[in-house]
Amino acid sequence: MVMIRIVAKNYVKADKVEVFTAMAQELVNKTRTEDAGCISYELFQDLKNPQVLTMFEEWKDNDCLTKHMNSAHFKEAMTAFQELLEKPGEADVYRKLI
Amino acid sequence: MVMIRIVAKNYVKADKVEVFTAMAQELVNKTRTEDAGCISYELFQDLKNPQVLTMFEEWKDNDCLTKHMNSAHFKEAMTAFQELLEKPGEADVYRKLI
Repeated sequence: MVMIRIVAKNYVKADKVEVFTAMAQELVNKTRTEDAGCISYELFQDLKNPQVLTMFEEWKDNDCLTKHMNSAHFKEAMTAFQELLEKPGEADVYRKLI
Repeated sequence: MVMIRIVAKNYVKADKVEVFTAMAQELVNKTRTEDAGCISYELFQDLKNPQVLTMFEEWKDNDCLTKHMNSAHFKEAMTAFQELLEKPGEADVYRKLI
């Protein structure tokens, strides 16, 4: 078992930040309550660029993350987010050292 | 009071990852024990690129962060890290939405 941390940046259109946040709330609720191995799942906003909405996630292991990414609520959210984004996002995956 | 989260990426020379980690351990120890308002301060390694060592930080507010960045242990670490880095790092500052 290796805990992993994800930092997933979303570049949201300027006039869609509120809509994105509302839709992300649903994804966060379902992920926290339904997805096994989810340690934390939180949405943050970049202070310098409010169009950058970043999900910070902690997962018990890679299997749990894979199951989450195959869930209906994750896939539906990714599809719905498409038209709200200015450009494709980026995701970094980390392991803890200290 | 607004909790803020920092994600500070360091691009470390390939043969300096262990040295960087050892030096970061000192900085982490001092920050966790000495710096007021430090909620968390952790070092992670990117799974795709092990030369990316990223500090995840949570601070009670901006004043606490400023005091940390003016501390002797922070300034000394930044100076010592210079020769271990391949290129300048990047830091993102966030506020929590969800």
